[in-house]
Amino acid sequence: MSGPSVSSSITARLEVQARPTAVSELTTAIEAAGGVVTALDVTASGHEQMTVDVTCATRGEQHAADIVEVLRALHGVVVERVSDRTFLMHLGGKISIESKVPLRNRDDLSMVYTPGVARVSEAIAAHPEDARRLTIKRNTIAVVTDGTAVLGLGNIGPLASLPVMEGKAVLFKRFAGIDAFPIALDTTDVDQIVETVCAIAPVFAGINLEDISAPRCFEVERRLRDRLDIPVFHDDQHGTAIVVVAALTNALKVVGKKIDEVRIVLSGAGAAGTAVLRLLLAAGAKDVVAGDVDGIVHRDRPGLPPSLEWCAEVTNPRGVTGSIVDALAGADVFIGVSAPDILTGRDVSTMAPDAIVFALANPRPEVDPDEAAQYAAVVGTGRSDFANQINNVLAFPGVFRGLIDARSHGITDGMLLAAAYALASVVSDDELNPTYIIPSVFNPEVTTQVAAAVERVARASGEA
Amino acid sequence: MSGPSVSSSITARLEVQARPTAVSELTTAIEAAGGVVTALDVTASGHEQMTVDVTCATRGEQHAADIVEVLRALHGVVVERVSDRTFLMHLGGKISIESKVPLRNRDDLSMVYTPGVARVSEAIAAHPEDARRLTIKRNTIAVVTDGTAVLGLGNIGPLASLPVMEGKAVLFKRFAGIDAFPIALDTTDVDQIVETVCAIAPVFAGINLEDISAPRCFEVERRLRDRLDIPVFHDDQHGTAIVVVAALTNALKVVGKKIDEVRIVLSGAGAAGTAVLRLLLAAGAKDVVAGDVDGIVHRDRPGLPPSLEWCAEVTNPRGVTGSIVDALAGADVFIGVSAPDILTGRDVSTMAPDAIVFALANPRPEVDPDEAAQYAAVVGTGRSDFANQINNVLAFPGVFRGLIDARSHGITDGMLLAAAYALASVVSDDELNPTYIIPSVFNPEVTTQVAAAVERVARASGEA
Repeated sequence: MSGPSVSSSITARLEVQARPTAVSELTTAIEAAGGVVTALDVTASGHEQMTVDVTCATRGEQHAADIVEVLRALHGVVVERVSDRTFLMHLGGKISIESKVPLRNRDDLSMVYTPGVARVSEAIAAHPEDARRLTIKRNTIAVVTDGTAVLGLGNIGPLASLPVMEGKAVLFKRFAGIDAFPIALDTTDVDQIVETVCAIAPVFAGINLEDISAPRCFEVERRLRDRLDIPVFHDDQHGTAIVVVAALTNALKVVGKKIDEVRIVLSGAGAAGTAVLRLLLAAGAKDVVAGDVDGIVHRDRPGLPPSLEWCAEVTNPRGVTGSIVDALAGADVFIGVSAPDILTGRDVSTMAPDAIVFALANPRPEVDPDEAAQYAAVVGTGRSDFANQINNVLAFPGVFRGLIDARSHGITDGMLLAAAYALASVVSDDELNPTYIIPSVFNPEVTTQVAAAVERVARASGEA
Repeated sequence: MSGPSVSSSITARLEVQARPTAVSELTTAIEAAGGVVTALDVTASGHEQMTVDVTCATRGEQHAADIVEVLRALHGVVVERVSDRTFLMHLGGKISIESKVPLRNRDDLSMVYTPGVARVSEAIAAHPEDARRLTIKRNTIAVVTDGTAVLGLGNIGPLASLPVMEGKAVLFKRFAGIDAFPIALDTTDVDQIVETVCAIAPVFAGINLEDISAPRCFEVERRLRDRLDIPVFHDDQHGTAIVVVAALTNALKVVGKKIDEVRIVLSGAGAAGTAVLRLLLAAGAKDVVAGDVDGIVHRDRPGLPPSLEWCAEVTNPRGVTGSIVDALAGADVFIGVSAPDILTGRDVSTMAPDAIVFALANPRPEVDPDEAAQYAAVVGTGRSDFANQINNVLAFPGVFRGLIDARSHGITDGMLLAAAYALASVVSDDELNPTYIIPSVFNPEVTTQVAAAVERVARASGEA
């Protein structure tokens, strides 16, 4: 299913015998091997030899190695060096800390540091809220993880999680102008996580929790929200929930159904599933059937874990039992935040007419989106190579921009819902269609609209 | 003693009646009131009125207010707005977090974030030391404080300490290209400080402790050094010690004395004093008499606190008792890291010929430097408005540059001493004189030499 991707690009430096067909032989060979040439530069040339840097997208590491072997086998070609574009981009890390003030001479020094800085410190000691004006607390958040549930990689630890957290910081800056710093914790103990984040909180205007495994993530978030006077947002939960509800709002418009009338099947009851459920209810959903690997959640399911008790109480009004596939019959909406390949096109075919399928497991969705599209009216995934990418990047930058601009001390479901509706509204009625229910992350209106909505609710709710 | 300073500059926006003497009346009035005009811009002008922004250095807030009153009293002048240059410089904080990678389209996104970033995380999970190459751990340190001993301000708490910590981050960037992030802790408990710093350590290549009060700072540093595999450096201790030993090395050259032959009196036995003592001994000093507000430290001093037991053991070989003033008689060197105005010129006159006086209490030194200079051959202070400023900024950027470049896992007294000698060596024999024993912080050789020395020792000692 997966084609060559620039995220698995390699650049090979080749010494090539100078002859008229030299370049076309290279590109033909790479393309015959399934690679996609994305750049080709002749960096040096002589009468008999030339140096060529060729960059191509591959399907992954093994495929890249295969392509290099194909190049090596070409007559008159010597492979000098192969570099990986993604690794090159990560060398030395992806963010830096820069000074915003000049430091040219003793006068500057006397204002940036002693003795001048003492007056600024004294002003904040007298009026602590001035820290939001006179320090980086004005625009800085922490991206906090313990490295236990990183992407699809699982518990890879704090060091290995760093490239992801730095990436998140890059996204915060690029899409919302927010200064975000990665805090990768060398502990997975809930008490220690909570104590550590509380201890380092003064410099931050908000905490973005990231890739902390369930069910610990619920307790970490709840206790931090209780203790801190700045908003705490677990992106895997609430970011996902916002984008799902935004996409669902528009998808329902496309098929002409109402959220309080549809039957929704939710696959996955972990961090994302729980948050999606909560926001669906806040948005007015009345009939949600949730399930996980052990089947549909209901009050009498044997061995129901404590973390699913709330879910059992608020879902499944018709008392359905069985598996997720059973639940699908006659359902209007499927939302998967669970595991790859748990459904077939045939399963989707049992849904009600004009069905909506969001299969968000990544990189392999709950159902093949092409198969699902044969039976469903609207299909969305978490992948960038299909239509309707349901991507957290659409939510978290704007949410924090709004929270920071409002100087909000907390975050409420009302803000999350406002963010979802604002995000949905970026797609105008004229643009809306089954393959365009959600805007591009590069649409500048996304952050602007989401931030404005969150700020408005924050100010109205008294959290600001 | 203290004249107008740019660190207490104000900029006043004035509406002035347009007449030939308008500008000279302003500057004359400000200068008559004791201010120093540093800039004057006519920002708008008409036939009858003009708008003038005048910036002047003052002696402090009261003086600034007095000058504004003088301006208000001038005929035909209306004061529109007065702003404080130092506060303006601090608006929004002094550092930012920037992306080092482009994020223009989906291809970039797929390398910076999912799916491409997963391969980088997997590589680090397999080889943790690669985090020094593929993440910001390569060049990032934490500036950690609990806000208990900030500048001369004392225990002002974490929020109020932030402008100082940000200033430190600016200095790290400006002088050593290091990415430093401020961690201002909302706890003063030693256990909690240690646990918190250990928990957040993965992202950092080093920890700079800052403005943590004694004696807690000793235990915090010791325990962190035991637990972490990155260097931990308490600047108030070791930064001061390095610069003092560097300055002393050159001052002794000026007067033609040897460190193992001179009598040294050390006033102050707190964080800085203890570290200075340790490095003096490492540099070969044999006769140090230390003292604090309770007098000279010796084994039999009544009520000697446990934190001074080590000091009593290694100092005072001649068994001197009494006060710091008593100790001064016949001494070759006075080093003060204690309190303002504890000595007079007369006290200095009891020292040996060609005495050296470092009076580092800031902003008011242990003895008036002008008075001291009447009796001592070499005088240094912590102030920028006298010769021989003994300033930590000369040490910490280069020390961390060297530690990071060596990928050092720790820090030793040998590195500190090498840093001191390297710093001293920046002043050549041709340049050396009683008013130039230490280079300017803006001399680019300072960081280069200090870093090279620390890196060399780190590699030789097996810490790298």
